[in-house]
Amino acid sequence: MKIGGTHYRTIWPAGDDAVEVIDQTRLPHEFATEVLDSAEECARAIRTMVVRGAPLIGATAAYGMALAMQVDASDAALEHAHDMLLATRPTAVNLKWALARMTDVLRNRPRDQRADLAWKEAAAICDEDVEVCRSIGEHGLKILQDAAAKKNGAMFNILTHCNAGWLATVDWGTALAPIYMAHDAGIDLHVWVDETRPRNQGASLTAFELGGHGVPHTIVADNAGGHLMQAGQVDLCITGTDRVTANGDVANKIGTYLKALAAKDNDVPFYVALPSSTIDWSLHSGRDIPIEERSADELLTMTGRLPDGHLATVEIAAPGSPGANPAFDVTPARLVTGFITERGVCAAGDLNALFPRMAAPLSGL
Amino acid sequence: MKIGGTHYRTIWPAGDDAVEVIDQTRLPHEFATEVLDSAEECARAIRTMVVRGAPLIGATAAYGMALAMQVDASDAALEHAHDMLLATRPTAVNLKWALARMTDVLRNRPRDQRADLAWKEAAAICDEDVEVCRSIGEHGLKILQDAAAKKNGAMFNILTHCNAGWLATVDWGTALAPIYMAHDAGIDLHVWVDETRPRNQGASLTAFELGGHGVPHTIVADNAGGHLMQAGQVDLCITGTDRVTANGDVANKIGTYLKALAAKDNDVPFYVALPSSTIDWSLHSGRDIPIEERSADELLTMTGRLPDGHLATVEIAAPGSPGANPAFDVTPARLVTGFITERGVCAAGDLNALFPRMAAPLSGL
Repeated sequence: MKIGGTHYRTIWPAGDDAVEVIDQTRLPHEFATEVLDSAEECARAIRTMVVRGAPLIGATAAYGMALAMQVDASDAALEHAHDMLLATRPTAVNLKWALARMTDVLRNRPRDQRADLAWKEAAAICDEDVEVCRSIGEHGLKILQDAAAKKNGAMFNILTHCNAGWLATVDWGTALAPIYMAHDAGIDLHVWVDETRPRNQGASLTAFELGGHGVPHTIVADNAGGHLMQAGQVDLCITGTDRVTANGDVANKIGTYLKALAAKDNDVPFYVALPSSTIDWSLHSGRDIPIEERSADELLTMTGRLPDGHLATVEIAAPGSPGANPAFDVTPARLVTGFITERGVCAAGDLNALFPRMAAPLSGL
Repeated sequence: MKIGGTHYRTIWPAGDDAVEVIDQTRLPHEFATEVLDSAEECARAIRTMVVRGAPLIGATAAYGMALAMQVDASDAALEHAHDMLLATRPTAVNLKWALARMTDVLRNRPRDQRADLAWKEAAAICDEDVEVCRSIGEHGLKILQDAAAKKNGAMFNILTHCNAGWLATVDWGTALAPIYMAHDAGIDLHVWVDETRPRNQGASLTAFELGGHGVPHTIVADNAGGHLMQAGQVDLCITGTDRVTANGDVANKIGTYLKALAAKDNDVPFYVALPSSTIDWSLHSGRDIPIEERSADELLTMTGRLPDGHLATVEIAAPGSPGANPAFDVTPARLVTGFITERGVCAAGDLNALFPRMAAPLSGL
């Protein structure tokens, strides 16, 4: 994607011993990049959400493994880097997937080849992610074209939650890839952007992305989606996901479940876009997915721009009142109209048919 | 209710030609009161949400009519004050109810008696509101006692949305009245407080109230309620309402519908507490309720306290992205377990049985 005429991915090599990423904690107020030159720095970037989004977390972890191999290519170092990076965030399974893939590639290879192999594998993960997201976009485009055609030329309204755009992946995005392609194809569409409390990835990242690409959009409170659906102002919902279990249950940003309930209640199609690296074949139900609990400060304070242009963080809640901050919820497969993947679209219960060989997961450590 | 050991209502006479109110736009950061000495000032206070909450809006409008009569007690002035106050906010029907009641009392009385009668009637509306809310609390207390008894001594968890506490009424509150009484009765309860974007009445007002009364509570993002219910961490939901139609549909703060859907999906009882002045017998379905659209600035900016103690307003969304701000949604009667009113509890479809004489509404102007 382009920012101010320059093409960016969200992560790219900075020479051959570091990677550079966009600091997503500073968007939309500031566009800044950060160089990560060690596995520990990659882990910090994931933990503090300098990078976020399930596919990008996986890509960053892969480069973290590669940087670890440059310092020490021993089995012990491999295991240490794997475990340290895996511990950064619990819910998105792409992290586990990428670390397992790196480990599988490296563990039976000579130590003196590991650094080079790891660097190439991390780059391959990134390149593949771009192509996978492009495929997701193309498959999703057909859904949007068919659905928009039924509107007889009237504006086609899509609702999305959180950010599953190019900032959440290496490029293109998952949920937003079909939207970019549909917009580029001339479909008259408009996106309702859920604010996505408490970290506001919708208002800050998705709105930033859509605005940059020229896609008409409107930010709404997370509370508003049900009312918009009741009023006939949402034709289709599409979100990303951090982990899908074998039965088709969907872990995604907290609040996704509420929107899926409203979509079901109002006969609005609810699609989830994902690369197959987001499928956790080892879990049979969404109840088994670990849900990350993050700091209540994310809820009780807010960072934004003062009238003088400086950034400031303000306390917004009643002093002394505690907060809780579960970061994800699980949408049952019964509420999902379909999955949009790099291999095509399937019903929530039919992932096995689309990915028959993947039921045997990567072994990892 | 008490603040710092002093008993307060939300509105009270300041001499005999003005009323004083708590400025709710400054809570929880500052406790300040404001004197309103004209109908126009009362209208401004309602419109700008210095006062808010359906019952308190009605009480403030009643005093606005009384203040108008002190200046000019003509029929024309009566009609003008009625229409000006009615135009302040469209959704809460208590406003219309209070203005109709004042008009019915005044219109066939001599002009020289109107100012005195109006002042007494406004005071009566306030006193009755306190008693009605106390009754709601007592009826709701029984529900909470019965439900908590099933927990066998374990903590009883209640979720509420927006603020339907004493700040939303003259005293006691609607949804929070039973909670205060249950807490005082020794029930081991805890309240999940929805933040309630975009104006954050949960995080700022409900948390302020509950903290002041010593009720254990935790602020959560509006997105979190569904996950908490899936996890078995919510035993009962209770909210207020701004307008209930004859069939039992419930207009309340935007996002209420999403919580009611999640409650239904997880077999969590969902109660709505209201005085009968919130029932609009003239409307047969929630689809007919006008939904207020407020300024997008409420969504795109946030006011809070800086580390140095000063208040500041920051822009929080992507620059240039527009926002939309519908302030209410409608929860269908099928999602409501029961109404808690001053006359007792009934199923959502059974309001007629509880209030048989009220099907003939006040005539108003």
